[in-house]
Amino acid sequence: MRVIVIGATGTIGQALVKTLSVHHDVVKVGHKDGGFHVDIASVDSIKTLYDSVGSFDAVVCAAGLAKFGRFEELKEADYLLGLTNKLMGQVNLVRIGRQYLKDKGCFTLTSGILSQEPMKGSASISMVNAGLDGFVRAAALELAPHLRINAVSPPWVKETMEAMGMESSSGMPAEKVALAYLNAVEGTRTGQILDPRSLIKN
Amino acid sequence: MRVIVIGATGTIGQALVKTLSVHHDVVKVGHKDGGFHVDIASVDSIKTLYDSVGSFDAVVCAAGLAKFGRFEELKEADYLLGLTNKLMGQVNLVRIGRQYLKDKGCFTLTSGILSQEPMKGSASISMVNAGLDGFVRAAALELAPHLRINAVSPPWVKETMEAMGMESSSGMPAEKVALAYLNAVEGTRTGQILDPRSLIKN
Repeated sequence: MRVIVIGATGTIGQALVKTLSVHHDVVKVGHKDGGFHVDIASVDSIKTLYDSVGSFDAVVCAAGLAKFGRFEELKEADYLLGLTNKLMGQVNLVRIGRQYLKDKGCFTLTSGILSQEPMKGSASISMVNAGLDGFVRAAALELAPHLRINAVSPPWVKETMEAMGMESSSGMPAEKVALAYLNAVEGTRTGQILDPRSLIKN
Repeated sequence: MRVIVIGATGTIGQALVKTLSVHHDVVKVGHKDGGFHVDIASVDSIKTLYDSVGSFDAVVCAAGLAKFGRFEELKEADYLLGLTNKLMGQVNLVRIGRQYLKDKGCFTLTSGILSQEPMKGSASISMVNAGLDGFVRAAALELAPHLRINAVSPPWVKETMEAMGMESSSGMPAEKVALAYLNAVEGTRTGQILDPRSLIKN
């Protein structure tokens, strides 16, 4: 399959490219780096990407900004960042991409477990991730039977925790998280929110 | 308690006012009608409401616009309507209202079961409702122990189905839905998404 990986230069994205490349032709898309670029917050940028990339069988997105912060300090603009970037960015990748994706193709988006397992500071991220989960469950009903859509809802990633100076023993290595995306791309599921902890034995 | 009901003139809102008025002092707030007005999509309008309404113990919101429509016909603006009105409108009622609400007060917002039980046409509404659920679960952690927050996630309301010309025998009467809000206001829960079907025997 020819698979577009958006966010290919990120922590999960790099692991995704490595994992998917074993059996698939991977098109790496970065925000500024990589062979192709996209700003998922821009509909025009998304259209330009799809117009330029040629035909493809799958879109995997591991990109999207959202703001973590104390509830009393989160401003309206902080919520809107997540809504316009991580949430509507991925919604628009699907809305627009369905006209380009090959029949029987699939979208695999990125949510996060804060949707169901919030913590202090996650109000805007939990909102965005849960919204994405709701979108995926609903959109799957109308994309079927031609296209599939799923989200991977990663736990804290070990490499991210290390980069943030957090104690990382509870984190999942990015290469393990990537297997959930592989499962979504190669399998037959649709409308599912995949928790890598449930799919993969550490 | 003094309870502000936003969306007091709507189908659920009217039932809410009737139910809450038995034991509480209800302040009715409409979009254009009622003693007080608010446009929840406007931060300024929300501030004006809170500044003018006096002190209060609870905010109940049964207002919020979102667009139902076929996936291939939903435009970006249709998604943004739900995000800016039903979702961020209610988030802003909490963000701003926490500075006005009395200690031990509570917010009760309105989601909807399409968050978890989507149907064809619900992509944007499922996204908005699920996002609200995620926000409520997370915000509760930081509003505690001073304030509570919950969402009621109503099923299809009988009167709404009748107004839309749908077969309504599966719908729940608004007066039954209102009991879930009463439970949220009078009880001790926080961070919960209340399904009136689970709480109330028809």
